[in-house]
Amino acid sequence: MDFADFPPVSPPDATVAAAARARQAGLTKPPGSLGRLEDLSVWAAACQGCCPPRQFERVRVVVFAGDHGVTRGRVSAYPAEVTAQMAANIDRGGAAINALAAVAGAGVRVVDMAVDSEAADFSAYKVRRGSGDITSEDALTAEQAAAAVDAGRRIADSEVDAGADLLIPGDMGIGNTTVAATLVAALTGAEPVEAVGHGTGIDDAGWARKTAAVRDALFRARRVSDPLGLLRCCGGADLAALAGFCAQAAVRRTPVLLDGLASTAAALVGERLAPGARAWWQAGHRSPEPAHALACAALGLEPILDLRMRLGEGTGAAVALPVLRAAVAALASMSTFAEAGVSGPSEAKAGADA
Amino acid sequence: MDFADFPPVSPPDATVAAAARARQAGLTKPPGSLGRLEDLSVWAAACQGCCPPRQFERVRVVVFAGDHGVTRGRVSAYPAEVTAQMAANIDRGGAAINALAAVAGAGVRVVDMAVDSEAADFSAYKVRRGSGDITSEDALTAEQAAAAVDAGRRIADSEVDAGADLLIPGDMGIGNTTVAATLVAALTGAEPVEAVGHGTGIDDAGWARKTAAVRDALFRARRVSDPLGLLRCCGGADLAALAGFCAQAAVRRTPVLLDGLASTAAALVGERLAPGARAWWQAGHRSPEPAHALACAALGLEPILDLRMRLGEGTGAAVALPVLRAAVAALASMSTFAEAGVSGPSEAKAGADA
Repeated sequence: MDFADFPPVSPPDATVAAAARARQAGLTKPPGSLGRLEDLSVWAAACQGCCPPRQFERVRVVVFAGDHGVTRGRVSAYPAEVTAQMAANIDRGGAAINALAAVAGAGVRVVDMAVDSEAADFSAYKVRRGSGDITSEDALTAEQAAAAVDAGRRIADSEVDAGADLLIPGDMGIGNTTVAATLVAALTGAEPVEAVGHGTGIDDAGWARKTAAVRDALFRARRVSDPLGLLRCCGGADLAALAGFCAQAAVRRTPVLLDGLASTAAALVGERLAPGARAWWQAGHRSPEPAHALACAALGLEPILDLRMRLGEGTGAAVALPVLRAAVAALASMSTFAEAGVSGPSEAKAGADA
Repeated sequence: MDFADFPPVSPPDATVAAAARARQAGLTKPPGSLGRLEDLSVWAAACQGCCPPRQFERVRVVVFAGDHGVTRGRVSAYPAEVTAQMAANIDRGGAAINALAAVAGAGVRVVDMAVDSEAADFSAYKVRRGSGDITSEDALTAEQAAAAVDAGRRIADSEVDAGADLLIPGDMGIGNTTVAATLVAALTGAEPVEAVGHGTGIDDAGWARKTAAVRDALFRARRVSDPLGLLRCCGGADLAALAGFCAQAAVRRTPVLLDGLASTAAALVGERLAPGARAWWQAGHRSPEPAHALACAALGLEPILDLRMRLGEGTGAAVALPVLRAAVAALASMSTFAEAGVSGPSEAKAGADA
């Protein structure tokens, strides 16, 4: 196989993280009182290698679209044709991710990796029309899996080279939560019933079909342990590209705000492709999909928001973006105790500005 | 007493809410998949009386500052002088609320209601220097309580008259969580140990002193049941103004994003002053203070964010503001299924765009 390994991922800058923590301690507020914002600000500074951190100014959402043969088993509430329709809707600017990215000040791009149609002008990276039905066949050939991961890598490279300072991976694909749950179960050892949720809104009978599909796919994958093999056996071109995208962002020292199940499942594979990449990622929001919680736990990530969103496309991460911007703003522009002439705690005045 | 009663509060527009819900159902996403954003968008539309809702463009944070005599009992980790220092810091633009409001696109104003100093040019509404020690004396005279509530009303009026389309109440006052916890306990019947938290960071001995202070204040307030009497007996000028501010916003049909314990405790009093006002409020974030959860439950409000913030000043609400903006953006600018030519769910296509 001609698939190039990812280079080693170096962590965000620990020295800058320490400087950011010290700066936080001197800001005019009780220590810790900004809660999660404080950790996020330290992370942002460490990723940028710069304290105080710069505000994120060129955030890019890349939505990876693809169909999945597993939808033939009626695992989704929506027909597969919706993938192509929604990819076009995103391309035209009418989808949720367009509205939410615009209000958050982020750009959106949609990439057709495996939509089952003769599609549009956003398909330069397309690998095939629909990934295989993972209950009975491989999703991709080995070459297609490598090409899809490589496409994600190249797209991350192109965004970073164009100046992106934060990346948000999005997904659009009817059936992709079935495939994502399979990948998470394969990598965490979870049972199908632990991993499968109701996706975009299937009923209980649909949930049972979906759980059976994940079980069948996991059986097919039982002897596959390498990340690229998993993507080939029970992934898909969109998820493979997402994995490569998230991993390459880390290689390029560019922070990532993960979205829901699809992007986080792919990121879990990406962490196997490029160990240590997870240090460059935050979980934007908590999805109600059980496999999302499993993937976050495996990656050591705590979601920033919990708004019961379950749409994908990058929407949860787009809504979380302003929280990250708030964290940066507080660390970058608040006065210190010394600057403002504010007293510290009653019993530890001398140490308050240390 | 010359205190004018609040006029009846009318609810947000139910007809517009129904139209907003119908519009949500036709947007290109699975029903319910934007989670909390959907409810918030319906609420915003109903408050504005307009579907699709307009984006919030003039959001104002008003920080009510005041000192509290109860700090003589060492109930806070910080000395009382910090109130004046921090009010000045906010006025100069160096505090957390300045950084967080700026990045969220909101304006900030600080009002000295009862800071214990000869303060600055933001003190036209000042009622006194420090509210009384509620463990042993009334916080305010009846006239001062009425004047402080009226100040909050007039400030809300001035902001709405100047074009504010959303208000955020903020607080700055060493010791104010002790007073706020007392008000919440008085109005919900909670025991002091249920209501008292660690505020800006007191140790366990401080927590015990604070709990004793709340117990003493509640004993003093045991025969007081009217809201203005409570503010007089065991409130403070800043909290009274906050109560009037939140209530008057509702009278003026202007939505409010509440912050943490101080503003939510005052809002709980405000709901008694102007029944039904709570329909115009959302809880911006969850505070770790136990009394905040009690107040939210009593008001029927579910916090939008849970970021372990415990700073006050309006900071949690300012961080929640972009979530509300995201909700408005999704409802206002997403395409419908019909516009985008996207298919609905497999088994209910005909109804998807109803």
